[in-house]
Amino acid sequence: MNDHIKAKIRTVPHWPKKGIMFRDITSLLQDAKGLRDTIKALVKRCQETYPGQVDVIAGIEARGFILGSAMAYEMNLGFVPIRKKGKLPGETYSQDYELEYGTDTIEIHKDSFKPGQKVLLVDDLLATGGTCLGAYQLIKKTGAEVVEACFIVDLPDLKGGEKLTKHNIPWSALVEFEGE
Amino acid sequence: MNDHIKAKIRTVPHWPKKGIMFRDITSLLQDAKGLRDTIKALVKRCQETYPGQVDVIAGIEARGFILGSAMAYEMNLGFVPIRKKGKLPGETYSQDYELEYGTDTIEIHKDSFKPGQKVLLVDDLLATGGTCLGAYQLIKKTGAEVVEACFIVDLPDLKGGEKLTKHNIPWSALVEFEGE
Repeated sequence: MNDHIKAKIRTVPHWPKKGIMFRDITSLLQDAKGLRDTIKALVKRCQETYPGQVDVIAGIEARGFILGSAMAYEMNLGFVPIRKKGKLPGETYSQDYELEYGTDTIEIHKDSFKPGQKVLLVDDLLATGGTCLGAYQLIKKTGAEVVEACFIVDLPDLKGGEKLTKHNIPWSALVEFEGE
Repeated sequence: MNDHIKAKIRTVPHWPKKGIMFRDITSLLQDAKGLRDTIKALVKRCQETYPGQVDVIAGIEARGFILGSAMAYEMNLGFVPIRKKGKLPGETYSQDYELEYGTDTIEIHKDSFKPGQKVLLVDDLLATGGTCLGAYQLIKKTGAEVVEACFIVDLPDLKGGEKLTKHNIPWSALVEFEGE
């Protein structure tokens, strides 16, 4: 369905390390039609599935910023950044999340949302789901509600979707790459 | 002229260290009208000053991603990320740039632009101009041309604008904060 989007995503073999087939969305987004088609597809999916139910977009640093802000602009919503530790100047909530080895920490401003706001969480790629789960937990700390987590790419072999579903987090992706 | 934008930028005193008045655009962008007015103002300024002369938008990690991609979407152009070292998977050019103490390195994919493309460079804030000058030099390495560097905020006391002008880099900002 989104083959025209998938065709513009470049695969970089063995990056960042041997054995990883890295799905690189920069080739998609530097193309004017690629960027436009991608944002339109993400917005359309959201508006059809959750009509009138999203109040604000949250994007995960850094590629989620690229997608989330253009979506927010198109949908006439505000945009909230979820950032690596130490990058946000105001009062923050923190959340550790699992990486392949060890953990990392993300933060959000405590006053990012108005009470009861419904949030669409955006990132470029769903792999193990660790970052997304951390971002979800972070948004819950503010009192806001996550409507869905949406991605351009799902890597189903890494079972991130299963992890999100297990935690009752609705999610969607425009395309998937299997076999790696 | 852009007082409605300036009024939504929060000042966080003494961040990231004592004596710095940090101008925080997250308060502007989490507001739907703030985000929309900001992107519209940046796009309008570009289209009026350089009509039909910009082919692609480049944004500097990470806040430049938030602005640049929404601008690219509105202008129906592609978006190219300029990233911290080690974040881009393809072949890159690198450029060191000056920080207050020491240097840092930014990178761009070698194939980010088609030959002769004209680039609008976007970041949130112009302080000393070191990062912007580095990004400009990086884009030049690809063979593309920088039409202008544009920002939401200029801090004229830090003389970044003078530095860019000295290097013949056109620039503009929507608002300025003086006295810090």
